[in-house]
Amino acid sequence: MITLTQYLLGMRETAHATLISGLAVAVKLTAAAASRGPLILDQTRQPSPREVNRSLRRLAGQVLLAQLQEADQLAGISFAGQPQILPGNPEGRYLLLFDAMHGMSNLNDNLPVGSAFSILERPEPGRPCLIEDFLQPGTRQVSAGIALFGPRTICALTTGDGVDGFTLDRDVGNFVLTHPHLRIPDESAMFAIDASQAPHWPAAVRRYVEECTLGSDGPRRQDFHMRWNASAVVGAYRVLNSGGLFLAPDTGRSGHWLAPLLHTAAPLAFLAEQAGGSASTGTGRVLEVSPSGLDARVPLFLGSSDEVARLEGYFADH
Amino acid sequence: MITLTQYLLGMRETAHATLISGLAVAVKLTAAAASRGPLILDQTRQPSPREVNRSLRRLAGQVLLAQLQEADQLAGISFAGQPQILPGNPEGRYLLLFDAMHGMSNLNDNLPVGSAFSILERPEPGRPCLIEDFLQPGTRQVSAGIALFGPRTICALTTGDGVDGFTLDRDVGNFVLTHPHLRIPDESAMFAIDASQAPHWPAAVRRYVEECTLGSDGPRRQDFHMRWNASAVVGAYRVLNSGGLFLAPDTGRSGHWLAPLLHTAAPLAFLAEQAGGSASTGTGRVLEVSPSGLDARVPLFLGSSDEVARLEGYFADH
Amino acid sequence: MITLTQYLLGMRETAHATLISGLAVAVKLTAAAASRGPLILDQTRQPSPREVNRSLRRLAGQVLLAQLQEADQLAGISFAGQPQILPGNPEGRYLLLFDAMHGMSNLNDNLPVGSAFSILERPEPGRPCLIEDFLQPGTRQVSAGIALFGPRTICALTTGDGVDGFTLDRDVGNFVLTHPHLRIPDESAMFAIDASQAPHWPAAVRRYVEECTLGSDGPRRQDFHMRWNASAVVGAYRVLNSGGLFLAPDTGRSGHWLAPLLHTAAPLAFLAEQAGGSASTGTGRVLEVSPSGLDARVPLFLGSSDEVARLEGYFADH
Amino acid sequence: MITLTQYLLGMRETAHATLISGLAVAVKLTAAAASRGPLILDQTRQPSPREVNRSLRRLAGQVLLAQLQEADQLAGISFAGQPQILPGNPEGRYLLLFDAMHGMSNLNDNLPVGSAFSILERPEPGRPCLIEDFLQPGTRQVSAGIALFGPRTICALTTGDGVDGFTLDRDVGNFVLTHPHLRIPDESAMFAIDASQAPHWPAAVRRYVEECTLGSDGPRRQDFHMRWNASAVVGAYRVLNSGGLFLAPDTGRSGHWLAPLLHTAAPLAFLAEQAGGSASTGTGRVLEVSPSGLDARVPLFLGSSDEVARLEGYFADH
Repeated sequence: MITLTQYLLGMRETAHATLISGLAVAVKLTAAAASRGPLILDQTRQPSPREVNRSLRRLAGQVLLAQLQEADQLAGISFAGQPQILPGNPEGRYLLLFDAMHGMSNLNDNLPVGSAFSILERPEPGRPCLIEDFLQPGTRQVSAGIALFGPRTICALTTGDGVDGFTLDRDVGNFVLTHPHLRIPDESAMFAIDASQAPHWPAAVRRYVEECTLGSDGPRRQDFHMRWNASAVVGAYRVLNSGGLFLAPDTGRSGHWLAPLLHTAAPLAFLAEQAGGSASTGTGRVLEVSPSGLDARVPLFLGSSDEVARLEGYFADH
Repeated sequence: MITLTQYLLGMRETAHATLISGLAVAVKLTAAAASRGPLILDQTRQPSPREVNRSLRRLAGQVLLAQLQEADQLAGISFAGQPQILPGNPEGRYLLLFDAMHGMSNLNDNLPVGSAFSILERPEPGRPCLIEDFLQPGTRQVSAGIALFGPRTICALTTGDGVDGFTLDRDVGNFVLTHPHLRIPDESAMFAIDASQAPHWPAAVRRYVEECTLGSDGPRRQDFHMRWNASAVVGAYRVLNSGGLFLAPDTGRSGHWLAPLLHTAAPLAFLAEQAGGSASTGTGRVLEVSPSGLDARVPLFLGSSDEVARLEGYFADH
Repeated sequence: MITLTQYLLGMRETAHATLISGLAVAVKLTAAAASRGPLILDQTRQPSPREVNRSLRRLAGQVLLAQLQEADQLAGISFAGQPQILPGNPEGRYLLLFDAMHGMSNLNDNLPVGSAFSILERPEPGRPCLIEDFLQPGTRQVSAGIALFGPRTICALTTGDGVDGFTLDRDVGNFVLTHPHLRIPDESAMFAIDASQAPHWPAAVRRYVEECTLGSDGPRRQDFHMRWNASAVVGAYRVLNSGGLFLAPDTGRSGHWLAPLLHTAAPLAFLAEQAGGSASTGTGRVLEVSPSGLDARVPLFLGSSDEVARLEGYFADH
Repeated sequence: MITLTQYLLGMRETAHATLISGLAVAVKLTAAAASRGPLILDQTRQPSPREVNRSLRRLAGQVLLAQLQEADQLAGISFAGQPQILPGNPEGRYLLLFDAMHGMSNLNDNLPVGSAFSILERPEPGRPCLIEDFLQPGTRQVSAGIALFGPRTICALTTGDGVDGFTLDRDVGNFVLTHPHLRIPDESAMFAIDASQAPHWPAAVRRYVEECTLGSDGPRRQDFHMRWNASAVVGAYRVLNSGGLFLAPDTGRSGHWLAPLLHTAAPLAFLAEQAGGSASTGTGRVLEVSPSGLDARVPLFLGSSDEVARLEGYFADH
């Protein structure tokens, strides 16, 4: 049995290990708070789900900062959805991007939510960090990971040498390495997409989904399953573990969700590739997209390499 | 702050309270085991998800029996998926139907799973109970409830006087009444259906879903959201909490999921009606269906009364 | 396996059960907070043990009130060490005396602490309760119990029909009946006394202890063991469980600890007698002492009946 | 807030860190099991305390081995009370001595128990380790520590650069650095000794204790407090934290407890000295005693330097 602590002690790069260790504590505290939900607030009146979620988000940010703000290797943090960055140590070599509660409204219905993080190396340490320092393509990530708060609290990490998955043993509070060397299965019959947006899908996506739903009678010659939880982190873990394809196309509609490149698409794509899969915008590798700003967004298709290739083929055709 | 224990102590019917108390302990133990997942097994080798789930299901059954097998008010138990019943005290007045781990394969991807229970009063106590005793329409239920294992462990109960929802405070192990008098919201823009089966939907269902996906441009004049987790318990909690419609139609395909009447559809329908909503087979009230056997199955549509009525109208049209 | 909830549901007197249920929740929350100790406070600076304990005591009182202040059977609460009482429902039939954190300074060194409670029936319900209502001899108690926060969180209860002991299963948060029908062992070779006060002991106590320490060479013809934790609750649980004698004599010194009659001596004596043992002031039964005020104090000797009788004999001799 | 993981990541010597990390996991699992006590066994019958303790001891050994047996820096383990050692990697540089459940019978009465460990560097790595390799004086320890299972789970560690204390946050399972740079207070008025053995104490010990019990009337001119829990680990933590003197003299009686040099006295002495105190056999420094065998035993006096010096003076006088 290998715990996350032992795993981190075995890493060559202590700076990464210290950052990931702080993230892991923040994840455990966030999971505990998320599990208590409305109970984290005064129980003399019934708080609204919105209040609960606002408190949880604030708390998740606070516990991360409590863990990491004195980490001297950290030059700055960018939280998802915030236009400003939090500068750290000007001498620090690393930048952290963090989405503490991805898909948070799922909590109202006790559906899974997740966290995602991405660690970049700074181009030029030795001066206060700037927003521009964060605007690097995903290929420059040195580490990325997700945590998933569901029936279990799990996390999956990469430092560029494959992906390892950990399950939290709540009895004692250890993340234990339960899924070493996660590999996206080649064979699978799963897809995940928001069917409520079907009329707005690009033609390539429509073709892909229709072929799946035709099942054993259609060109794919097998029946497909689907799940949808309106969360790219949840969807990414599902493909990491069980294969298939997660689809978050651009519907061209204002207000419709599109994956934040830096805080979501890049770390998920790094994990997918490190697990033997692919991540595409439909027309190219997600990891190679250069972000125009902290809030840049991209279509995101990730999963088994064959499925991503098939969809990219359809995009090329249409 | 009211705990489940205090809530049960306030019940007039001690026999129900004792059964529900035993179920609550089983649910807490099951949630704890489910959260540890592969860690409940020997860690010297990596167990397969199938082995993990098999162990969890066995354990969930065992903890329920450990809690309830000596309850003298209990005449018999029927576990979901089992052709035989477990006889209890011949003098007992109550019958329990229990589905310990509904949608269990979701655990592989850390997606939510749930439990459902239904308590029936026996027609004639005083003799060993028979399978026939369980074959009563859902209107005869005296209590029903679900537990949901997600980021939180929650449960929702009815004894025929509304629905109350509880959240497990993991710090101390109490279920706390966080959602008293749960009412399905009238206004909502949500639906849940397995889009991978679209070609096999009945016409009424197809019409309902297409109108939703047309969003603000269509006849419903608003944009809809969807989630799908292949679990009626998960879906039922979502409509209890956030409204909308859960759809599990008959696709006419062998091997495709259809809701078990006694262990799933009946308790969910009892909850939905007690929360001000409805549950239909498309052509009639779920609670009035007389079961032909322990494994009888029905199409299940449940949620806000207006939505159920709309869908029933479409069924009548087609 | 019987949980405390099931045990309470089996009680004839629902009012007691509701009060004990509230106490149990308070005990679980207090145990959880006590286990976190300094971690319940802001960790940006190192809090003093005194601050930690003050916060814990406040929290323990708050959680009890949150549980019980709306219990309509409760006419009033007296907290240990407080000159005022907290009036409850004027129509309530019961009075609660509670010591949330007995021997609290032990926490500094991670030594065990405990809680004690006593429930009295009011002489005349139907009017606001007065301090005088609490000034009843211990024979009038309808229920009493202790909780002990050590390696385990345990509690022991009586409602006048023997003593039952429960162990908290922290995994799931249930108190489980692990020690039904606790009986103080007749044979034992244990005593507990504060040896630092030896020069100030009454002659009877000195004789008793000296005979013990002489061991197999002395009149008792066996070797004795001792423990001392400066806590009557800790000492009482030890004699309940392992027999022997707990001695808290009057040393005649101002500032030296003497057992509070109402909040400590009375409930411990009720438990001891219900477990087949005795509790004496040296010259008479503790339960028969009429309290002169909320803060009345008595010498306390409790344990195996033979040992208490022996000590009373020595008191009669000297 | 600094967790043990972050603390270990900051250590220069990774090999120590890995061993301590494994010990910490074992301690957390042992604490969780100890807290459940009889509940770790089948609850269909009531297990005896002896059975419970035997199961706990076995489990504590197993979890340690599960953590450490593949640690390649570990040449061998000696468990307290076992005549044989467990050989590890012949190339390993370190030897571990471990007492998983010191004072275990305390658990019967819910009194605190503890663990102690000592890490020695091997004289000559590169060959299978022998019992003789362990027979080194305590000055050769590179690390030592204790864990204490009471209301809290705490641990205190040294690697030869002071002592740091950690409290387990059970909510999330982290050891958090709550007592950095533990220093034994100079001023204190506490002692701990087994008063049941008074007639068998050496004259120096008798004099020391009598002077304490005389209190403000005696030569020490202050009142003293005492506690006794029949556990050197519990006593050692108390002096680390609150000062004073812990006394475990040689009573010259067969069967009476005397501290095991390697598994108990040496690690406690290392901690005491690193926290600014002393540890003596009465006639010399504990750390300089050369062990004659794995089961060598010594009288043990440890605490504030002034108190140890005073007692050593009395030994010299008598």
